[in-house]
Amino acid sequence: MRILGIDPGLQTTGFGVVDVQGSSLQYVASGTITTTHLARGDLPARLKVLFDGIRQVRDSYRPDAAAVEIVFVNTNPQSTLLLGQARGACVTALVACELAVAEYTAVQMKQAIAGHGRAAKAQVQEMVKRLLKLPGVPGEDAADALGLAITHAHAGQSMARIAQATPTARRTSGMYRAGRTY
Amino acid sequence: MRILGIDPGLQTTGFGVVDVQGSSLQYVASGTITTTHLARGDLPARLKVLFDGIRQVRDSYRPDAAAVEIVFVNTNPQSTLLLGQARGACVTALVACELAVAEYTAVQMKQAIAGHGRAAKAQVQEMVKRLLKLPGVPGEDAADALGLAITHAHAGQSMARIAQATPTARRTSGMYRAGRTY
Repeated sequence: MRILGIDPGLQTTGFGVVDVQGSSLQYVASGTITTTHLARGDLPARLKVLFDGIRQVRDSYRPDAAAVEIVFVNTNPQSTLLLGQARGACVTALVACELAVAEYTAVQMKQAIAGHGRAAKAQVQEMVKRLLKLPGVPGEDAADALGLAITHAHAGQSMARIAQATPTARRTSGMYRAGRTY
Repeated sequence: MRILGIDPGLQTTGFGVVDVQGSSLQYVASGTITTTHLARGDLPARLKVLFDGIRQVRDSYRPDAAAVEIVFVNTNPQSTLLLGQARGACVTALVACELAVAEYTAVQMKQAIAGHGRAAKAQVQEMVKRLLKLPGVPGEDAADALGLAITHAHAGQSMARIAQATPTARRTSGMYRAGRTY
């Protein structure tokens, strides 16, 4: 299974693509979609860049599922509103591609990647590098996105193990929504 | 010109379609896109309903431009975040259709429709009914969406008048972004 992780942001949205086969992880691609070249006030144009960027990533790598970070309210309400709209554009781009979207908090991702929910950005970058055997540390946004894809891969394995130990009738529960049941 | 107005909301998004010819307005359609039949927590599915709904409205009525309400921060930050994501999905649906998107605040819309920015919902409904010669008052969300379309029609006329009185070099300023220059 190929998983696309998305770390949404209005200025910079990180993406990371990881292949999962059993417990083995394989790095495919990662990067960022930025809107900083556009006028700050032109929100529709910036949301279109995010939408088009995610569609391009999807067309290039054809993921089977997506995992998106659950964003939180900011101390600045206006920033919350802008981040919300950016995340809305990202999730919309994924569901418009008919991708199943799992949602994880940053704490869940850090727990899965670095072992504790308060891990620093640098720790997440370092652990993502090790887990995917990368030659160098990825950028912060790409690392978070790769971390989300890995988190979803782990959640999928846990769900698969539960499914194996569970009567058939319960096996239909949605694996891709594992993030909600953490 | 045919204008699509959108009043974004996570539970209910209002839409209204109006034809404009000179100073004459013609009602085309209006209604709501609701997500209340879905689980509250399944945000990706709810955003997809908004995205698909707006695409359907666009496919049915083929508007030339869109006007969307600028939403504001709520006293509840979590509601702000959810409303932001709903608006993000709506704007994304419009720009994904290559529609030019103008943005107006509720105050601007009420000013244009009812003559003062603090007009009550019922006043907006009544004025929209009169301006479009409707047999009855539209619902609140549809009335707001029709109000936004009418506001954009008025802004377009103002911009056209300015363009007529302005040297050619300045005529290229974007008419559809008129809402920002109010």
